Amino acid sequence: MKELKTTTHFTVRFSEVDSMNITWHGSYVSFFEDAREAFGKEYGIDYLTIFGNGYYAPLVDIHIEYKSPLIYGDEGIIEITYKDCEAAKLQFEYEIFNAKNGKLVAKGSTTQVFLDKDYNLVLYPPKFFMEWKIKNKLIEQ
Amino acid sequence: MKELKTTTHFTVRFSEVDSMNITWHGSYVSFFEDAREAFGKEYGIDYLTIFGNGYYAPLVDIHIEYKSPLIYGDEGIIEITYKDCEAAKLQFEYEIFNAKNGKLVAKGSTTQVFLDKDYNLVLYPPKFFMEWKIKNKLIEQ
Amino acid sequence: MKELKTTTHFTVRFSEVDSMNITWHGSYVSFFEDAREAFGKEYGIDYLTIFGNGYYAPLVDIHIEYKSPLIYGDEGIIEITYKDCEAAKLQFEYEIFNAKNGKLVAKGSTTQVFLDKDYNLVLYPPKFFMEWKIKNKLIEQ
Amino acid sequence: MKELKTTTHFTVRFSEVDSMNITWHGSYVSFFEDAREAFGKEYGIDYLTIFGNGYYAPLVDIHIEYKSPLIYGDEGIIEITYKDCEAAKLQFEYEIFNAKNGKLVAKGSTTQVFLDKDYNLVLYPPKFFMEWKIKNKLIEQ
Repeated sequence: MKELKTTTHFTVRFSEVDSMNITWHGSYVSFFEDAREAFGKEYGIDYLTIFGNGYYAPLVDIHIEYKSPLIYGDEGIIEITYKDCEAAKLQFEYEIFNAKNGKLVAKGSTTQVFLDKDYNLVLYPPKFFMEWKIKNKLIEQ
Repeated sequence: MKELKTTTHFTVRFSEVDSMNITWHGSYVSFFEDAREAFGKEYGIDYLTIFGNGYYAPLVDIHIEYKSPLIYGDEGIIEITYKDCEAAKLQFEYEIFNAKNGKLVAKGSTTQVFLDKDYNLVLYPPKFFMEWKIKNKLIEQ
Repeated sequence: MKELKTTTHFTVRFSEVDSMNITWHGSYVSFFEDAREAFGKEYGIDYLTIFGNGYYAPLVDIHIEYKSPLIYGDEGIIEITYKDCEAAKLQFEYEIFNAKNGKLVAKGSTTQVFLDKDYNLVLYPPKFFMEWKIKNKLIEQ
Repeated sequence: MKELKTTTHFTVRFSEVDSMNITWHGSYVSFFEDAREAFGKEYGIDYLTIFGNGYYAPLVDIHIEYKSPLIYGDEGIIEITYKDCEAAKLQFEYEIFNAKNGKLVAKGSTTQVFLDKDYNLVLYPPKFFMEWKIKNKLIEQ
């Protein structure tokens, strides 16, 4: 099975740093979100595509482990990997590295479910999502 | 004419402080927003009331002057005053004081316009807004 | 063993809601932080006390599960419970409920470690932390 | 006199959009901050350079006018222009355009002062700042 992965870069903003002079832990939620969106754009499963197919994909789970801090101005490299499963879920794993020294900065995961436009939970993978899996060789037709 | 004013308190959060150990300037946008919402609830012109009457009221102008810093854990007192005008606008002025010593921390102003649900600018004050003004003795019937 | 727990309330801000009209998942990091700080103030282990004793206590792990959404203006009740362990760590568990109907909104956990002022990881529980545990009957003298 | 100007691009993040489906007005404070930092890096007057010379440069004034909204995924082009003055101040003007149609999205200004490391206001332009002006032909030697 093909592994779907996107790598992006970011630079820590002044407003993302806390009074300990390190990147505030909450900022990583946005780093993950940016990575997810970059992945979505590369593989055709971004927020607007999901929405255009009639669904929302809210997060139901996020887990972040902080390994070493990034300070203001540091560049981070974030790798996001899609983790396929049979359920009607979008699962991703993340690793952030310090661009300067390659050190692992943080790792984590997110899980999203699908809601229809009336905010009802979708129990089976939507058709467009199955087609997306086939197109990306995650499952065989 | 009656002056409409609301006073609320807030405590500076850890995540609102920057690496200079003072409240990040961008956090004041949220302090203003909280004050506007407290005013709206007290006088019946909050976001959901405006929305329920068929309008959005986005900001078109914000001005903030920073006079003395608040640090983490400091308590701020924010006074918001409604500034009536004849146009289809919501105008507010703000003053933030340090609860510890009464010192002026910041002052500013915001202007909001009305959009209908199709996001068209409303040129004349909406009926519910005129009724709100009459009810609050800002204009005479 | 006594269970240390704090309960606080919050109201969802306009700026905390996303374009799905529900509270943005990242906002919960701040809700947890606010709860942690309320706990810290109630039990004498807040950020400034830790800092005053010569330590930082950065997060090394956060986990959030989202169960049902809060919308703009909703009131949330957050319960934070201290989970004692032998390591030099601060561990908390969180539950957020919808004040309107008591429904579980989210649950999660955080882990913090201690760093000294030179940002070195502290391997043994600091003296002030052990004294805090004794004072709060988490361990016997 | 040479005009110092930097142009950068940004894409509106999901978390920057509010429940009106437009970019939350507070997000522009970060757009301005990013532009200021890009300018600082291009011309050698970024936050870390200022800090390395012994100063902080906190904002004392921000003014933003919102002209037309950006929605999620829109690309913005931001132009930041340095406005020289004789006082010990850093003044910038900003214009944001919609990359799709060139429409003006927002404009504004910021003013920063210099504080020394003890947080005292600096009344005369610091030496490194005067040298920076000379180097950039804003004043003659």
